[in-house]
Amino acid sequence: MKGPSQLGPIDVSALSGLLDGDHAEVRTRVREQLATYASLVYEAPGLTTADYRARVLEVLHTAVPSGLTRLGFPKEYGGSGDIGGSIAAFETLALGDLSVLVKFGVQFGLFGGAILHLGSAKHHERYLEDVMSGRLLGCFAMTETGHGSNVQALRTTATYDPDHGRFLVHTPDLSARKDYIGNSARDGELAVVFAQLEVGGEQHGVHAILVPIRDADGAPLPGVQIEDCGHKLGLNGVDNGRLTFDRVAVSRDNLLDRYAQVDESGSYTSAIDNPDRRFFTMLGTLVQGRVSVGGGALGAAKVALALATRYALQRRQFGAPGAEDEALLMDYRVHQRRLLPLVARTYALHFTQAGLVATLHRVFSLDDDAGDAREHERRELESAAAGIKSLTTWHATQTIQTCREACGGAGYLSANRFGMLKADTDVFTTFEGDNTVLLQLVAKGLLTDYRDSFEQLDPIGMARYVAGLAVESVAERTSWWQLAERLRDAVPGGDDDNAGLLDREYHLAMYRWRDDHVRSAVARRLKRGIDRGDDAFDVFSSCQDHVVLAARVHVERVVLEAFAEAVDSCPDGPQRMVLSALCDLSALGGIENDRGWFQEHGRLSGERAKAITTMVGALCEELRPHARDLVDAFGIPEELLDVEMLR
Amino acid sequence: MKGPSQLGPIDVSALSGLLDGDHAEVRTRVREQLATYASLVYEAPGLTTADYRARVLEVLHTAVPSGLTRLGFPKEYGGSGDIGGSIAAFETLALGDLSVLVKFGVQFGLFGGAILHLGSAKHHERYLEDVMSGRLLGCFAMTETGHGSNVQALRTTATYDPDHGRFLVHTPDLSARKDYIGNSARDGELAVVFAQLEVGGEQHGVHAILVPIRDADGAPLPGVQIEDCGHKLGLNGVDNGRLTFDRVAVSRDNLLDRYAQVDESGSYTSAIDNPDRRFFTMLGTLVQGRVSVGGGALGAAKVALALATRYALQRRQFGAPGAEDEALLMDYRVHQRRLLPLVARTYALHFTQAGLVATLHRVFSLDDDAGDAREHERRELESAAAGIKSLTTWHATQTIQTCREACGGAGYLSANRFGMLKADTDVFTTFEGDNTVLLQLVAKGLLTDYRDSFEQLDPIGMARYVAGLAVESVAERTSWWQLAERLRDAVPGGDDDNAGLLDREYHLAMYRWRDDHVRSAVARRLKRGIDRGDDAFDVFSSCQDHVVLAARVHVERVVLEAFAEAVDSCPDGPQRMVLSALCDLSALGGIENDRGWFQEHGRLSGERAKAITTMVGALCEELRPHARDLVDAFGIPEELLDVEMLR
Repeated sequence: MKGPSQLGPIDVSALSGLLDGDHAEVRTRVREQLATYASLVYEAPGLTTADYRARVLEVLHTAVPSGLTRLGFPKEYGGSGDIGGSIAAFETLALGDLSVLVKFGVQFGLFGGAILHLGSAKHHERYLEDVMSGRLLGCFAMTETGHGSNVQALRTTATYDPDHGRFLVHTPDLSARKDYIGNSARDGELAVVFAQLEVGGEQHGVHAILVPIRDADGAPLPGVQIEDCGHKLGLNGVDNGRLTFDRVAVSRDNLLDRYAQVDESGSYTSAIDNPDRRFFTMLGTLVQGRVSVGGGALGAAKVALALATRYALQRRQFGAPGAEDEALLMDYRVHQRRLLPLVARTYALHFTQAGLVATLHRVFSLDDDAGDAREHERRELESAAAGIKSLTTWHATQTIQTCREACGGAGYLSANRFGMLKADTDVFTTFEGDNTVLLQLVAKGLLTDYRDSFEQLDPIGMARYVAGLAVESVAERTSWWQLAERLRDAVPGGDDDNAGLLDREYHLAMYRWRDDHVRSAVARRLKRGIDRGDDAFDVFSSCQDHVVLAARVHVERVVLEAFAEAVDSCPDGPQRMVLSALCDLSALGGIENDRGWFQEHGRLSGERAKAITTMVGALCEELRPHARDLVDAFGIPEELLDVEMLR
Repeated sequence: MKGPSQLGPIDVSALSGLLDGDHAEVRTRVREQLATYASLVYEAPGLTTADYRARVLEVLHTAVPSGLTRLGFPKEYGGSGDIGGSIAAFETLALGDLSVLVKFGVQFGLFGGAILHLGSAKHHERYLEDVMSGRLLGCFAMTETGHGSNVQALRTTATYDPDHGRFLVHTPDLSARKDYIGNSARDGELAVVFAQLEVGGEQHGVHAILVPIRDADGAPLPGVQIEDCGHKLGLNGVDNGRLTFDRVAVSRDNLLDRYAQVDESGSYTSAIDNPDRRFFTMLGTLVQGRVSVGGGALGAAKVALALATRYALQRRQFGAPGAEDEALLMDYRVHQRRLLPLVARTYALHFTQAGLVATLHRVFSLDDDAGDAREHERRELESAAAGIKSLTTWHATQTIQTCREACGGAGYLSANRFGMLKADTDVFTTFEGDNTVLLQLVAKGLLTDYRDSFEQLDPIGMARYVAGLAVESVAERTSWWQLAERLRDAVPGGDDDNAGLLDREYHLAMYRWRDDHVRSAVARRLKRGIDRGDDAFDVFSSCQDHVVLAARVHVERVVLEAFAEAVDSCPDGPQRMVLSALCDLSALGGIENDRGWFQEHGRLSGERAKAITTMVGALCEELRPHARDLVDAFGIPEELLDVEMLR
């Protein structure tokens, strides 16, 4: 069996440059910024919630002169017009205190982003400068106590009152209360409220409207009730709260009216006729939040890996015979197996994320409303963002947990950072879309070819839609049957044939085959159930785990393709070789994890599956001498790694 | 294909009685006790560390009159002599605040247990009453900054000074500092210190010695330096600290001298000649701690499952067509798949733990020092405790995480308990033995048939030992080859043969086959490497993940056998039927998770593997109507489930 090749010494700064990519300059600026408040990561566990919130706000205000808060806004309003840079900045901020990260995300991403994308020039002129400068703090009030993922079912109302040319924003009952709203319990003055718009007795679906919630002294405005969500598992530097509105009157101008307008007389207009399409077009402009969360999760995972790797290269335990010292943790196979595949997957997801950010930058830097092609591109971007966010945030949860355990008791002390890394990132799998729901959205996009309004997760509709047309279209689109035939020849799989385990084409073929196969299979199951006349909800429900699997394996394919492309575009030399080894480890580790499925479907013999397990171990061993370099290349400021256990 | 059978209505209190088992009365008393301080679980997230520690100590003192703190101590010293009951009490305490649990564990289990098991009558007379009554608070000072798992390598010294008839306890350098020591930063007055005993210039290995650390006013005694470990990821109601000794003199009587004595003249005696055997005999008496941690982890997992299940039966999301309400979370297949297999595995581990506790109770209720048979029994108990502790604590981590995610944003609010459940239990995988190290101990026991001194994890020794004799003995003992032949006939596995998926004998045969196969395979690998003349450390290192797998699959077998036995001993009726369905789900879920391995080794066809996945889904659906009953049967006091999201 061909083993992994010998890797030469790595140039860490060159590798770091490959990771930093197009936004190296922005990342460098953020790293400098991070160093100015690095102490917060060590002090935060001992702060009261009140003090922590105050510190986080202070950091936000201090960051304004650096210009980082302006990156994502248009130049004509005082921004930098650098959307990709703004995400890169967010990703890098995630190396430091995560309450600061989320406070920034709420203020400049969600709140500022909603005004930018859903508002029109009058809103931009009036608010953006104050948003960027942090003079106007605000909230993104979408989620309600009774509705999170199903945004179309929100129940807060905004009713137009033509007699006074105003909207009345109202919370009909407790389940319609806005909940978990960041920046609302303490600081926010203005909220972007998502509400069912009613004009002249007619319902127009969910729209966003600006509602002032606090006066200059910080007191809730009349009719607005603000509650504190109280202590949270993590992110206690962010003031999450609950908002209840009792027929709060706001000016007609407060409707964020880029996609729909209400004139003084109470006549509703929109360039998008279909209400679903209109709604999901609006929501789609907010995709940046999801992309940011995924990138932030990776930043936190990198910190955990850097800490655990350095510890494993310092801490000794039990002995090799005759040796003076005990053996380093990192010299144990089990320890390599715990950490190095996670390092490899972090690289894989990093390059995937970088590609996603580049696409986002391109799509959002163009004029919008440019027809169907553009819309298709946006739907694809949204789908990719949803899928990649799911995988990166789950990866972060798993990675930080594993790193904590790999540092034993030391990992449990707050001084060593894992406590807050774990707690703060835990909700990343939930916010900006629950991962399980997001994967169903991805699957819907795959099965319906984005022809339907994308963000709407209507399980029944999906099942019916697929039954109606998808099998043929899916099968045609993916050419699954032909592909399967071609692969049967191309992919080695015989018991004694262990050649090609490190062949990138083999990895890609396996991932693509699984993607195509699961997608077709789930389409056929949905169709069969509907054709049989079964209840559509039951049909969907019985396939739901299969639907989620289809999405997951599709995104896994996207990840491998992105990493493979990054390796291909890297110049020859030791950095390329190490990236290639990481790509091998990530690809084979993924096949190893799912080797049950591959064997079930005749794509992997038992012998070859065992050979893959062996090869994953060999790759870990090969990468072991480079472990420190691999995590150093993440470019984490030393101030943020200055933990007790490494002193 | 035979599907699951229809389950009738369950008698929750009967099911609860089956879970409570032999210790129902003790559990009831603890539940009453829990209700008296239930509010702490809601208040703790908002407390400062100082206030939280004070509250926890207050709860400890308040519990003394109930008699619960006396359960595990001998009757002649004022205890109840009910070892099994003391563990059942600990398990039940885990339904409430976990800092209280761990404070109890340190005081009555580790500190009191060490005095009881390692001390002699003079120590019992002098200290036990004060320990049980909480008048004397103490610490268990084993772990050092530089050594956790490798206890034999501890570096604190206790040197006998014959001129003054005393020991000098000393910390030679920073890495020998006692670290993470519970009860030490604030409250402990006396510490059981594990130190290298030196008498007359001769080293006798690690022994336990009592060292007073604080005076009556709480100030550190001369020569003792006490540091606070500071804020931790969780368990902040427990005062963990660090102890450094500067030639602290303690009386000769302070040596806990059950297994080794030093007389006034400085002559060392022990009934156990072999120093390794002596050391591991001492350590072995402390097995109760490990058993307790496993049971505590299960208690916390039960709380998480009860909360998430109730939430899933209340929260609605998205709609079935034409239905007035949206669908309950629990009616989604993905949600069932997330929660119900964890419920089933919790039952499986509960009955396994109950069996372990019964064994512990029996072994420790007998006179000890009763020869080789007794010693063998103790080594087996220690091995079972190590293995089961690993699986239960990892299960708790996974379960609580999944339940948090399954409750979305609500799961992130501290008011709904997941935050502290997660954070507090996180270290359970580490303390009382790191799980990965523990599984290697289990493997060592399996491979060497407990002939060697058990607790000593000496990878090289293990490899050499196995090379010397284990293959033959392992092969002979397990009769693997013959068994494999028999199974090949007995176990269905053909592509079209889906009969027997719910046959308990099939499940057991699969688990046993895997256990035996992995064990033999790893023994052969170790032997091959050593025979080839490879470096013993390299041989061990390259097999280490395989060694850990051998232990894990062995314990999985133990778990299934225990659950199957519990089902068999349950009277006919609906409770037995539901337990049987849970056993099926747990067994098949385990095969599904490891279906890659089973296929690789020719024990599962692809078609049958798919059928198992389908059956796991069908079992979830079958159990769905009983979800509430299944978690109600855990017997968690309502006061502890009175969370915001369920109101």
